[in-house]
Amino acid sequence: MTERLVVIGGDAAGMSAASQARDRRGPDDLRIVALEKGAHASYSACGIPYLVGGEVTDVESLVSRRPEVFRDTLDIDLRLRTEAVEIDLDRRAVAVRDEEGDLGWEPFDQLVIATGAVPGRPDLPGAGAGGIHGVQTLDDGIALLRALERGPREAVVVGGGYIGLEMAEALVRRGLKVSLVDAAGQPMSTLDPDMGALIADALRDLGIRVHLGERVEGFEESGGHVTAVRTENLTLPADLVVLGLGTRPNSALAEAAGIEVGETSGIRTDRRMRTPTEGVWAAGDCVETFHLVSRQPVAIALGTHANKQGRVAGINIGGGHASFPGVVGTAVSKICEYEVARTGLTTAEAARAGFEPVGEIMESTTRAGYYPGARRMKIKMIADRGTGRLLGAQIVGQEGAAKRIDALAIAVWHEMTVEEITGLDLSYAPPFAPVWDPVLIAARKAAEHLERLGRRG
Amino acid sequence: MTERLVVIGGDAAGMSAASQARDRRGPDDLRIVALEKGAHASYSACGIPYLVGGEVTDVESLVSRRPEVFRDTLDIDLRLRTEAVEIDLDRRAVAVRDEEGDLGWEPFDQLVIATGAVPGRPDLPGAGAGGIHGVQTLDDGIALLRALERGPREAVVVGGGYIGLEMAEALVRRGLKVSLVDAAGQPMSTLDPDMGALIADALRDLGIRVHLGERVEGFEESGGHVTAVRTENLTLPADLVVLGLGTRPNSALAEAAGIEVGETSGIRTDRRMRTPTEGVWAAGDCVETFHLVSRQPVAIALGTHANKQGRVAGINIGGGHASFPGVVGTAVSKICEYEVARTGLTTAEAARAGFEPVGEIMESTTRAGYYPGARRMKIKMIADRGTGRLLGAQIVGQEGAAKRIDALAIAVWHEMTVEEITGLDLSYAPPFAPVWDPVLIAARKAAEHLERLGRRG
Repeated sequence: MTERLVVIGGDAAGMSAASQARDRRGPDDLRIVALEKGAHASYSACGIPYLVGGEVTDVESLVSRRPEVFRDTLDIDLRLRTEAVEIDLDRRAVAVRDEEGDLGWEPFDQLVIATGAVPGRPDLPGAGAGGIHGVQTLDDGIALLRALERGPREAVVVGGGYIGLEMAEALVRRGLKVSLVDAAGQPMSTLDPDMGALIADALRDLGIRVHLGERVEGFEESGGHVTAVRTENLTLPADLVVLGLGTRPNSALAEAAGIEVGETSGIRTDRRMRTPTEGVWAAGDCVETFHLVSRQPVAIALGTHANKQGRVAGINIGGGHASFPGVVGTAVSKICEYEVARTGLTTAEAARAGFEPVGEIMESTTRAGYYPGARRMKIKMIADRGTGRLLGAQIVGQEGAAKRIDALAIAVWHEMTVEEITGLDLSYAPPFAPVWDPVLIAARKAAEHLERLGRRG
Repeated sequence: MTERLVVIGGDAAGMSAASQARDRRGPDDLRIVALEKGAHASYSACGIPYLVGGEVTDVESLVSRRPEVFRDTLDIDLRLRTEAVEIDLDRRAVAVRDEEGDLGWEPFDQLVIATGAVPGRPDLPGAGAGGIHGVQTLDDGIALLRALERGPREAVVVGGGYIGLEMAEALVRRGLKVSLVDAAGQPMSTLDPDMGALIADALRDLGIRVHLGERVEGFEESGGHVTAVRTENLTLPADLVVLGLGTRPNSALAEAAGIEVGETSGIRTDRRMRTPTEGVWAAGDCVETFHLVSRQPVAIALGTHANKQGRVAGINIGGGHASFPGVVGTAVSKICEYEVARTGLTTAEAARAGFEPVGEIMESTTRAGYYPGARRMKIKMIADRGTGRLLGAQIVGQEGAAKRIDALAIAVWHEMTVEEITGLDLSYAPPFAPVWDPVLIAARKAAEHLERLGRRG
């Protein structure tokens, strides 16, 4: 008998799951329906800032697989502008509102919940005014592009995380005057304060006015359109506002159905992406995952995790065996010529997780100092004082700096000590690194630092 | 009583050992003499091709620490143009010929042998002619620069390894017509043949005439200067010849003294860089080291290993504790816009080491496909059929491709399976990688390949 798989959410996690399941089970064995409430499926949400900034000019290039490919080649019944409004576990069916607004029930044997994340949109006076944009979906990105055509002059970006900074750069590229507001004392609060301060300096170099420690209290409007952003101390004129306030797992539908949601508000799954409810899987930004260093659940909205988790769910539904082992919190971003990356825990996170973190910033170059195009970069390594284990690392530098975080992410993954890292056989040639790669220098400095502390007892 | 440390060889390994020992023991505790037969110490030999090619214009920029720094700041008695001609283990002294040609004895309590490598220079008719250059030492590089001033027109590079290719590029940059000759059927025989073929294509794109499977049989000369390179089938006109034939450990001095030399002709040491002879250490290109995948001794001449091994010897002589765990055979190079990297074992090496290697080439891009500046790259992963363990990896691509080898080197180091690699938390943002980093895609493809083979039994 043909089994029925319903996938809620047609982006990275959902369509990866659908594709992998199809790869292993033909249409006679598994009927697949994918429900996407937006107008686009299977696109790179991470590409939106570059669409807005103009580096990417073709909206379609962000779509990794067109709907026809799913429908015609993979025999996946992908329905756009179609919203799942309820999951009924007793009936084993999802209530669906289609493009025309008609309601119906879609029965399932297997269900993948891939409902993504919802943006943190402040419930503040004036938050509904025109000109205030989120940038979570491709539809959001297209709306923002249209807003730019109306020629706004002054933009305020609220939130100094990855998306906020990428959007600030995009708007600078479009010739707007840009201010950035963040309630925290530093941009990029996923970094230690000393590394975050380097980012604040870089933003100011780019002509962005950076207002830190300022919580947004409301928006002023005129004729239904935003005119200013108000904080405790400031009124920042704006005819365009971009909200980059981070996200939380979109788990309301699952929770309403009685599917277990964790303290992060992400849906709970095991390593095979199974929820505790038989036949119900979850993947992507709507789930919580396991941090391999803090040993705590975390919810991290990132396309790369969503793709992997979707693949794992799909392989398992397809009859294979795959698992998602967890994360170490790796992330990377680019703001004009500056590259920023991190992995593992920050100093504060490490202390909260019960370690005794010790860290130091080290400066080096991306290539041999004498080789043309060598750029400056700084690495901070955070090690556990007692064991010497690398707990986390952060990089701020110019071209060629940030991707070195991958080596450090794998070192963190394997619980290497900083002394062990100094022995790693990393690649060296003058166009690629100094003879001691910055990763190795940072490990040496960290090891020496720990040794000095050890001698002091 | 003051101990006496003598270091033979004033480059990466020797001067790292001397500096680290000094860092831990003052001049009253440890007297340090370093003997260097050449005119330069502590320089980047790997930078010579870029000096010859003109990317680096200042010879001095290749020197990482000037002799005065060692003498005045570190109190290390560095003697240039001073050759160690014999080690007498009974007398615990080194026979030394100084700049004036005078012989004397230098007694030691601790000895570091860091005599480097000797180039493979063919014993062929005409090999002594003018215009035939090695490129091993900075003095060689300076001699070649002078030869270029005489305006040669046609160059033949003998040997298609890293140095040969880097020199071929350098000579193309200088406007010479360049031919490359290699006895093997592919350039870069540290890669699998299918990856090496990509390099041969790239070299031809650069206008280099590539002659493979041609063993050099001799050199023609006129008036003491080379005029052509003869192979079995070809006579290649040349007024400049560069030999890039690889190197072997320069262990003759040690061997003559009765210090143990292994089958690679490298000096044998333990992980702390001690030879079996009490108080005698060795480090750098003159030693053999342990390959962590093949579990066999290997001799790999590379500045990064030399620096690490020298550091380890110096820390241990200084009373600390450090060890050099071995290598996984990582290397990287750049030939014009092409980047080449490898780690672990090739398919042939893996088979020789008793594995059942399975490999496939995968193509991807260095950034998200839609992001400006995305470049093509190919990765070949070699996995063990039985266990799925990653045995080696090779990369050929354009800007931003090759440094990804570091992630793979650490995966090889930790004996990860290709399926485990698919779960790694590597950094993703469109300016840095597709949502599946090429490393992860290659691991997925390799895992799928192994699964298909497994099904076939």
